[in-house]
Amino acid sequence: MRIQLVNPNASRAMTAKIAVTARAVAGPGVEIDAVTNDEGPAALESHTDDALALPGLLRAIERADAGGADAHVIACFGDPGLDAARELARGPVIGIAEAGMHAAALVSRRFAVVTTLARTLGHTRDLTRRYGFGEACAAAYAADIPVLDLEEASPAAVERIGALAERAVHEDGAESIVLGCAGMTDLCTALEVRLGVPVIDGVAAAVGLASALVRMGASTSRREEYAPPPRRPGELLRV
Amino acid sequence: MRIQLVNPNASRAMTAKIAVTARAVAGPGVEIDAVTNDEGPAALESHTDDALALPGLLRAIERADAGGADAHVIACFGDPGLDAARELARGPVIGIAEAGMHAAALVSRRFAVVTTLARTLGHTRDLTRRYGFGEACAAAYAADIPVLDLEEASPAAVERIGALAERAVHEDGAESIVLGCAGMTDLCTALEVRLGVPVIDGVAAAVGLASALVRMGASTSRREEYAPPPRRPGELLRV
Amino acid sequence: MRIQLVNPNASRAMTAKIAVTARAVAGPGVEIDAVTNDEGPAALESHTDDALALPGLLRAIERADAGGADAHVIACFGDPGLDAARELARGPVIGIAEAGMHAAALVSRRFAVVTTLARTLGHTRDLTRRYGFGEACAAAYAADIPVLDLEEASPAAVERIGALAERAVHEDGAESIVLGCAGMTDLCTALEVRLGVPVIDGVAAAVGLASALVRMGASTSRREEYAPPPRRPGELLRV
Amino acid sequence: MRIQLVNPNASRAMTAKIAVTARAVAGPGVEIDAVTNDEGPAALESHTDDALALPGLLRAIERADAGGADAHVIACFGDPGLDAARELARGPVIGIAEAGMHAAALVSRRFAVVTTLARTLGHTRDLTRRYGFGEACAAAYAADIPVLDLEEASPAAVERIGALAERAVHEDGAESIVLGCAGMTDLCTALEVRLGVPVIDGVAAAVGLASALVRMGASTSRREEYAPPPRRPGELLRV
Amino acid sequence: MRIQLVNPNASRAMTAKIAVTARAVAGPGVEIDAVTNDEGPAALESHTDDALALPGLLRAIERADAGGADAHVIACFGDPGLDAARELARGPVIGIAEAGMHAAALVSRRFAVVTTLARTLGHTRDLTRRYGFGEACAAAYAADIPVLDLEEASPAAVERIGALAERAVHEDGAESIVLGCAGMTDLCTALEVRLGVPVIDGVAAAVGLASALVRMGASTSRREEYAPPPRRPGELLRV
Amino acid sequence: MRIQLVNPNASRAMTAKIAVTARAVAGPGVEIDAVTNDEGPAALESHTDDALALPGLLRAIERADAGGADAHVIACFGDPGLDAARELARGPVIGIAEAGMHAAALVSRRFAVVTTLARTLGHTRDLTRRYGFGEACAAAYAADIPVLDLEEASPAAVERIGALAERAVHEDGAESIVLGCAGMTDLCTALEVRLGVPVIDGVAAAVGLASALVRMGASTSRREEYAPPPRRPGELLRV
Repeated sequence: MRIQLVNPNASRAMTAKIAVTARAVAGPGVEIDAVTNDEGPAALESHTDDALALPGLLRAIERADAGGADAHVIACFGDPGLDAARELARGPVIGIAEAGMHAAALVSRRFAVVTTLARTLGHTRDLTRRYGFGEACAAAYAADIPVLDLEEASPAAVERIGALAERAVHEDGAESIVLGCAGMTDLCTALEVRLGVPVIDGVAAAVGLASALVRMGASTSRREEYAPPPRRPGELLRV
Repeated sequence: MRIQLVNPNASRAMTAKIAVTARAVAGPGVEIDAVTNDEGPAALESHTDDALALPGLLRAIERADAGGADAHVIACFGDPGLDAARELARGPVIGIAEAGMHAAALVSRRFAVVTTLARTLGHTRDLTRRYGFGEACAAAYAADIPVLDLEEASPAAVERIGALAERAVHEDGAESIVLGCAGMTDLCTALEVRLGVPVIDGVAAAVGLASALVRMGASTSRREEYAPPPRRPGELLRV
Repeated sequence: MRIQLVNPNASRAMTAKIAVTARAVAGPGVEIDAVTNDEGPAALESHTDDALALPGLLRAIERADAGGADAHVIACFGDPGLDAARELARGPVIGIAEAGMHAAALVSRRFAVVTTLARTLGHTRDLTRRYGFGEACAAAYAADIPVLDLEEASPAAVERIGALAERAVHEDGAESIVLGCAGMTDLCTALEVRLGVPVIDGVAAAVGLASALVRMGASTSRREEYAPPPRRPGELLRV
Repeated sequence: MRIQLVNPNASRAMTAKIAVTARAVAGPGVEIDAVTNDEGPAALESHTDDALALPGLLRAIERADAGGADAHVIACFGDPGLDAARELARGPVIGIAEAGMHAAALVSRRFAVVTTLARTLGHTRDLTRRYGFGEACAAAYAADIPVLDLEEASPAAVERIGALAERAVHEDGAESIVLGCAGMTDLCTALEVRLGVPVIDGVAAAVGLASALVRMGASTSRREEYAPPPRRPGELLRV
Repeated sequence: MRIQLVNPNASRAMTAKIAVTARAVAGPGVEIDAVTNDEGPAALESHTDDALALPGLLRAIERADAGGADAHVIACFGDPGLDAARELARGPVIGIAEAGMHAAALVSRRFAVVTTLARTLGHTRDLTRRYGFGEACAAAYAADIPVLDLEEASPAAVERIGALAERAVHEDGAESIVLGCAGMTDLCTALEVRLGVPVIDGVAAAVGLASALVRMGASTSRREEYAPPPRRPGELLRV
Repeated sequence: MRIQLVNPNASRAMTAKIAVTARAVAGPGVEIDAVTNDEGPAALESHTDDALALPGLLRAIERADAGGADAHVIACFGDPGLDAARELARGPVIGIAEAGMHAAALVSRRFAVVTTLARTLGHTRDLTRRYGFGEACAAAYAADIPVLDLEEASPAAVERIGALAERAVHEDGAESIVLGCAGMTDLCTALEVRLGVPVIDGVAAAVGLASALVRMGASTSRREEYAPPPRRPGELLRV
């Protein structure tokens, strides 16, 4: 089984880092193709960044789909382009925010999200509600760390993330933590030791969910919402 | 006051049609600049279409903002790019789905949406909930009419839209109807006569809301969610 | 276009104050008729006050409707009598709590309400949910200021309102503020300067929404909920 | 223990009818004082009717409170004036819609409401949500019977009510029925025989809940929402 | 009328204590049969405890039902076995969490729950939502007191419960308090004096609701959800 | 990796059938231990059945946990004992209703559940809401087939299930189907062919989710809700 892992931003350092996580949890027989969206913004830190990442991201989905990928992971916590990617791919497509929240809901009653910038919290709350975890999400905090600083996180940044996670556990009743950025993937174990609760990395969760779906033979429904997009006469190319 | 009306798809016929509506309801002193997103898809009928329309749409927002527009209307019922546009513009930005639902909620307890394609109903429901009208929306129906067929709607298409609206009124308890496509803007009066309830066209509603906000001196909050997007070193151009 | 602005309480000083705001935002061609409910309580600070204000308030609606008003604004943050007024008037009727929340939802993702007395917070929360803004409302605070003290607000009262609004912005993530009393209408600009986020006055918002609806030709649905009330044989007079 | 039962409309025939029900279920030691709001409309069939009933209704509450009533029942399915009455009375105040829904929720997972006029369904849904039974309410139907026709219900009216209740049970999965008008109080037993599920009359339920609260020593909280209303200098009389 | 009060845990001291409360509020003609589930765990402090209490608890319901009990109260705040008991009994069955919340919602707009152990708060929140009081519940706190310590509560325990209730009233806007354990039944009056708001004991509330339902002639619906459980060939005994 | 699959009812034929499904989707290196709860009822078709299955079910969890199982699947669509099992096991525990709904939400916007008996629909709706899929669930239907008839489903039963699933797809807008009973596990492929949308079997989904969690190193949080249950002096044995 081949799972494509697309990093929607243009940081190859981040792609390399999340590929390590993905391969560590991929079981036997699961191959990870890690791809960087070179056409995308350097980081996705606003609705505008998300919008500008989409054309390149969707092209990567189409390319991998044509190349035989069995499933796709969109490795940015805003889950940009998830709906469109599902229209385009034959196999399942999983976003890492979605995956992290699903996994957290399976191992605890209430989780908290610790993410990068406060300006993305509104979008995080939107995703939480859309995926059905509005009540399961006890809190969402932002550590005020730019995404690219996580390529090589400073001790101060790690401490800030840990302190917010602790607050979520001790004050908000969170029983697990979802890491709110693909770039936090390597902080998982250290945080788990510090906090004593499960710390979920969306990249690992998405690889797990995608391979489970492939093994079950379940792919995205082609009915209504995610049917292949209509092709209109005179439009040469979809993506 | 100058309000920019952006049609996110590339149909100039549709732009012309909605400009007529917009100008008819714009009060004294309100000027409408109607703009077509020539780079966009011919019609927006899928999540993929919405994604591909964004770069051109956001460029139109930036351009008009620099050119002194006081407010912006995004004239496609999926409200594509609304969040990103709010980051980029100084004045208020209103989507026509959003505007249609707000207006309907002010003149009735429950409304129904009649839109084009069934595949967009999921997105319509998402918007309904996001804007807070999950309970106010009694039903959402799709007439299964491709968007571009509305450039010049056939009698059969008009009949189908009317029949669904009637069903919403008589079976679902809708007390008003929201038209679910910018291209339906010219059906408003005839439908109102047929149904005997308010029929809201989002284009008209958006022009009204945008000019009300400008007159109140209210613009998009620059705090958190809609702050101007960060500019990273080495990125030449935002949009 | 003529919009009637009814102050449901008996304070003519307050009526005069809100008429100033209303006229300042009314565009060209919009005339404001400001009316005091002389039969009402001196201030509306309880459910009982709201109840006792209704007969006089509804008579004012009927009178202005007969006199040709195109729309009506109920200028008390509890939106008393809104449903009944919609049954009685031909043109749209807008409450200022409703209007303030709609406007805030159009310029930010989350707003907070700062109102007068803690005892009215339950009713504010009810309205927030009824209008669909339960999730958009980040917080509701009461400054513990009697309504009539706002006829001429003391510096201490202004400071208390400002401090609560700041708390809403900095601790609760509110991106805009809705003023929770018609009597706060003149604090809007100063608060906006202090807070750096949009501060919405419901009176201004209601005038804007009402005139937008009139220009669109949209009036209250006459079907079911807001149909004219039944007249029973032997009842001489409705209101 | 003395419980005041106020009929908010002016129909003495209806008061007499509901007094019979109330006395039948009042246990030993519970006395029922049945009172008609002679100043109110002949029937409460619109928001306007509800508004006009309030002054007389609240006076009845104040009078009975001064006269030593231990609790109050507001015997109209719209629960008019409930919040204001709680501010004014020392003992508990129960509305019959509220009581009927509470009782139905204790004997079934989902109930349906069968009420009089379609125009009141929006208000019924509001009450359902406010009391927390939005999910427990499987359906709400209107039999299109004017309230006063229930003083002496015709066989056709009874049949219509029964047919709607059957539909709620067989199509909507309702496991019990709440009668949506005080005037239906005498149909309870016959409907229960026909339907084979509990049929709850709000008058009976309200008497039961009110006497339970009195026996427990529980009265309305005087903190915030339901504190006695402020008395302003110069206002002679509250109600 | 005979109401069975089952204590699902094996503590006879606790049964004796709650029987005193139950008898104090039972009106004339209401007899209380207090029963201990000797087969159950010593206390119910986890989902596992709840599960292990069920067989004995359900046998007690069946036995009392056969013996002519008119209604049943399950006297543990987790309301264990409530759905199953409703399948088995002819008369109404009331849980004390359910009853406490219903009563609190009738005398205040928002209540708080103060319970024993933090580990049960998730279950309390579940019940709150299931019964429809998700919005009415302003807060739920745990005093970190093992259930059996409440057989004879220490002054420190009482102080901790009182302090949390005060916090709920002053910080969270709770207007009444629901005691979250049958073992707190004797703290009700002292807390009410301290807090100045209604303090609801679920045992008293459940006795009140159960006798009200019996007097109204309302019993659990036998349709669908609570129909008697199917008996399969070869299964000798249900419970 | 070893995953224990517990069938909470006593039907060994059903255990055998679901073991086949589980093994078919378990990837390389995943071993399935299929266990029957011999002490449980013949089938779980009521709340009472669920309650009586718990002691044996929890013993099976404890036994397998002690024997080194890495994860557990509770193979009955009501997810009985899920919370208690999470307190007792070191590895993750997944219910098949939970798993089926999670998987369906990952491959479609809206799913429907087709289950056995109408009397269990209330419980299904409860689970749907608890897991966060209240809005994603378009419909829940019961085919009125006793659980044990599914050991060897008749053509008529298969047809009834298929017809309900078709109705959900064509009338309710479901884009995928969740099978509402472990005993339907072998109908999955045929239904998928008939319907043209994904048909999710909870058993397969649960095995996939459980192995994904094990590979990620994620287990149930031990904080609060799912901490090991307290052991009280004098209680010999937990389960």
